[in-house]
Amino acid sequence: MGWTRKDLLGLEDLSKEEITLILDTADSFKEVSTREIKKVPALRGKTVVNLFYEPSTRTRVSFEVAAKRLSADVINIATETSSVKKGETLIDTGANIEALKVDIIVMRHNYSGAAIMLAKHVKASVVNAGDGWHEHPTQALLDMFTLREKLGKIEGLNVTIVGDIAHSRVARSNIWGLTKLGAKVTVCAPEMLIPPGIEEMGAKVSHDIDDALRNADAVNVLRMQFERDDGDAFPKQLEYFKNFGITEERLAKVKKNIIVMHPGPINRGIEMSSEVADGANSVILEQVTNGIAVRMAVLFLVAQANENIKHEDAD
Amino acid sequence: MGWTRKDLLGLEDLSKEEITLILDTADSFKEVSTREIKKVPALRGKTVVNLFYEPSTRTRVSFEVAAKRLSADVINIATETSSVKKGETLIDTGANIEALKVDIIVMRHNYSGAAIMLAKHVKASVVNAGDGWHEHPTQALLDMFTLREKLGKIEGLNVTIVGDIAHSRVARSNIWGLTKLGAKVTVCAPEMLIPPGIEEMGAKVSHDIDDALRNADAVNVLRMQFERDDGDAFPKQLEYFKNFGITEERLAKVKKNIIVMHPGPINRGIEMSSEVADGANSVILEQVTNGIAVRMAVLFLVAQANENIKHEDAD
Amino acid sequence: MGWTRKDLLGLEDLSKEEITLILDTADSFKEVSTREIKKVPALRGKTVVNLFYEPSTRTRVSFEVAAKRLSADVINIATETSSVKKGETLIDTGANIEALKVDIIVMRHNYSGAAIMLAKHVKASVVNAGDGWHEHPTQALLDMFTLREKLGKIEGLNVTIVGDIAHSRVARSNIWGLTKLGAKVTVCAPEMLIPPGIEEMGAKVSHDIDDALRNADAVNVLRMQFERDDGDAFPKQLEYFKNFGITEERLAKVKKNIIVMHPGPINRGIEMSSEVADGANSVILEQVTNGIAVRMAVLFLVAQANENIKHEDAD
Repeated sequence: MGWTRKDLLGLEDLSKEEITLILDTADSFKEVSTREIKKVPALRGKTVVNLFYEPSTRTRVSFEVAAKRLSADVINIATETSSVKKGETLIDTGANIEALKVDIIVMRHNYSGAAIMLAKHVKASVVNAGDGWHEHPTQALLDMFTLREKLGKIEGLNVTIVGDIAHSRVARSNIWGLTKLGAKVTVCAPEMLIPPGIEEMGAKVSHDIDDALRNADAVNVLRMQFERDDGDAFPKQLEYFKNFGITEERLAKVKKNIIVMHPGPINRGIEMSSEVADGANSVILEQVTNGIAVRMAVLFLVAQANENIKHEDAD
Repeated sequence: MGWTRKDLLGLEDLSKEEITLILDTADSFKEVSTREIKKVPALRGKTVVNLFYEPSTRTRVSFEVAAKRLSADVINIATETSSVKKGETLIDTGANIEALKVDIIVMRHNYSGAAIMLAKHVKASVVNAGDGWHEHPTQALLDMFTLREKLGKIEGLNVTIVGDIAHSRVARSNIWGLTKLGAKVTVCAPEMLIPPGIEEMGAKVSHDIDDALRNADAVNVLRMQFERDDGDAFPKQLEYFKNFGITEERLAKVKKNIIVMHPGPINRGIEMSSEVADGANSVILEQVTNGIAVRMAVLFLVAQANENIKHEDAD
Repeated sequence: MGWTRKDLLGLEDLSKEEITLILDTADSFKEVSTREIKKVPALRGKTVVNLFYEPSTRTRVSFEVAAKRLSADVINIATETSSVKKGETLIDTGANIEALKVDIIVMRHNYSGAAIMLAKHVKASVVNAGDGWHEHPTQALLDMFTLREKLGKIEGLNVTIVGDIAHSRVARSNIWGLTKLGAKVTVCAPEMLIPPGIEEMGAKVSHDIDDALRNADAVNVLRMQFERDDGDAFPKQLEYFKNFGITEERLAKVKKNIIVMHPGPINRGIEMSSEVADGANSVILEQVTNGIAVRMAVLFLVAQANENIKHEDAD
C-alpha cells in the first residue's frame, strides 16, 4: 500500500496501515543521520516553509534538520515577523505562501483545526506541527516509532500517559495512534486535567499513578505548565510531583523494563525525578533522534503523494 | 543590450530597455518554479544577505526563495538582532557585510535613499527591497511583469493607482516604471494622501474613484495603514471603503477585463471587497508568484554585471 | 602535527603548534572566498547549530557564512525562541541538540565556562563563540591571523590591547594566544578596567596610552560599553576618548606601520577617531574577512578530529 494523502493533519483519520507505513519509512530514513554525509537528494529543489504561530525551538529545528537532510530548501517564518501582525487571515497567508510555489507548509498554530483549514485551501502539502489542543501527529508518531523500536511491536502494549491530558495535543494524537495499532492506553491525571470524552477515544482513565503504572509497558510523561505568576506555583508543583511524579521508587514497583518517554523539555523534579529522566528506562533522547527520521518520512511521503496527485490532475 | 549595473536601486534611473530586459529575464526564470526540481545553479557559491531594517515577511521570504532557487547561500539579518542596535552606522554595517565577501545585499530600510547610499560604499551588489517612501523597485517590476503577462504589453495602458500615494514607495516605483514603458498612470486618493510633485512624475491626479477607474485597463490598490490606537480607526476605514474601496458594483461600470492588483497583505473590506480580492479580475496571487521570477531575474542580472565589472577592473 | 581536539573552547589550553595549525589551515581557506564559486564540499552533509544565548549579528553571521562555504547545513537557534525560556538547563539543551545528530555546536553564552561545560556533555564538537568574560577564541585567532598576514610573524611583536580589559573575553583570548606565540602583550586602560591577575597571564599593564603605544607593532582597540541610561555617558565618553582614544596625533608619535585592530562594531569618536578607523594603519575590515577563513578552519578541524575520534571508538 502506498501513501496517497497530500497532508499529515492528525492521526485520528489515518488507518493502521498508513501509520505503519510512516513508521516503516522512518525506519529506512533513520540510517541517514548516522552517515558521515547525512544527506539524501529526495527533496532536492523542493521548498519547505516552517510557519510557526507559536514559539517552538525543538519542533521547528527538528523539521528544519529533517528537511535539510532530504536536501530541501527551508524557509522559516515566525509570527513575530509575519504579516499576520498586519491582520492577514490564515487563509490569505496560506494562499500567499502557496503562490510562492512551495511544496510543503509545516505549521504550528494555537488554534485547534488550523492545519485542517489551511490544507483545504492550498495545493501544497500541509504538515501539522501542533494545532491548539487538537493534534501533534509527528510527536505521537515518533513516540510510537520509539516504542516499536524498543519493544518490537505496539499491538497489545499497555501505554500510560501521565499529565495534563485536557490541554495536550500530544496525548490526543498518541491515543488515536496507539489504539489504532492495538495498544491499550490509560491516561492518568488529577480529575480536573482529564477532558470529557476521553473514554470515547478509547482510553481508560485513572487518577492513581501507581495503579496506572502497574501493568504498563511504557509511560509517556507530559510536560506540566504551571503559571509563573501564580504565587502558589511552587507548592502546586511539589504536590504534583508527590502525587504524579515518576520516581525510582514508583518504577521499582512496576515492570522492570518499562519505557519512560517525555516530549520535552522536562521539568525535572515536577514530572519526573532527574534519576528517572537520565535512567536506564528513559528513552527521551532517543525520541529526539527518532523525531528526525519520522519527520523525514512524513515530509517525503506527503511530497511524493502530492507529485502523484499533480500528475493525475495533468492526465 | 546587456545589463551593466551592479545594483538595482529604483526604477527612476532605468531606461525602458533596462526595465524590459529585467521583465524578459523574469519570463525565462518563471518556468523554474514550475519544475519538480525548482532549482538552477546560476548563483551557486554566491552569498546573498537579506538585510532588513523593517519587519517584512513577504518581501524577505520572496527574495529568500528566489535566491535559493538560484542555488545561492542566503543569510538573513533582521534589525532586532543586528549590531545596528549597538549604534553602528549603515556605512559601517555595509563595509562589514562586504568584508564577508558577500555578492548581493538585499536591503529594506526605513530611510529614503538608504539603498543608494549603501550601494555607493560597497562593491557588492545592492538590491533595494524598499527604502522609506522612496522606491520599491522589485514590487513595481512584478506588477509590470504581471500586467504585461496578462495584457500582452504595457505601452498605451491606462493604469490607476489607488490609496495612500503620499507614503507609498510602491506607487512611486510604479509611476516611474509604467510611464517609462509608455503607460498612462492616474493616481487616486483623498487630497491629503496625494504628495506634491506627483504630476511632474507623469501621473494624472484624481479624487474620484469611479472617474479614475472609467478607462483603466488595470487598477493597483495600495495597502492603507490606519493607526490601531486611533479610536476613530473603524469609522475612518468605513469611510475610506465607501469612497475608495474597489467593489463589484464599481467594477461593473468599468472595462470588463480590468486587472485588479494589490501588493498585499489585503485589508478586506477596507481597500477592496472580498469578492473583488478573490474574483476573476484579481491577479493578486499571480503577483506573488511573479515576484519570485522577477527577483530571480534581478539577483541574476546584478550578480552577473558585478562579475563583469570585477573582470574589467582586473584587466 | 594534526589537530586532535573535538572542540575549540579557548586559547588558554592550546599549544603554540595547535594555534599555528589553525592559522595555517585558515591560510588555505582564505582563497575560497575570492573565487567566483565560494564553496568547497568539506562539510557537505554535516549539520552546524549556531546556539546563541546573547544577541550577536556579526559573530553568528560570520560562522554561518563560514559553515555554508564549507557546504554544511546551518541551523540558527537564538535564545528568544529557545526552550531555554521554558527553564531547560544548558546540559539538557545540549543533550537534545546532540540527539539531532548534529556535528558542531557553535555557542555564545553569557556565562563564563558555559562552552566547556557543554563540551563535556556532548559528543558533538563545540566551538566557543564567546562565553561571558572568559574567552572568544575565534576572535583572537582572526586577530592573530591578521597580524601574521600583515607583519609576517607573531613572535617578538609588541601588541597593545586598549580598553575594558576586565570585561573582555577578546582581551583574554588574545593574551593567551599572543603570548604562546611569543608576542609581548601590554594592556592599557584606566585602573578600574584592569582585572586582577592579568600580569600572571603574561601581560604588562599600563595606564598611559602614549606610553603603551610607543613600541607597539600593533594595537587592538576594544569596544567600550557605556550604559545608555547613564546621564553621564556623554562626558564619560569624551573623557575616555581624550585619555585613551586612538587618534592620528597619537599615531604620529609611534611606529609608522603600526597595525590598528578592532573587533567591531567601532564607536567612532570614543575608542578611536574616524580618521584612524578608516586610515592606512587600520586593518579592521580585513579582520572581518579573515574571520571567515579562521572560522572555516576551526569548523573543518574540529569536525575532522571528531570523525577520527568516532572511528577510533568504533575500532
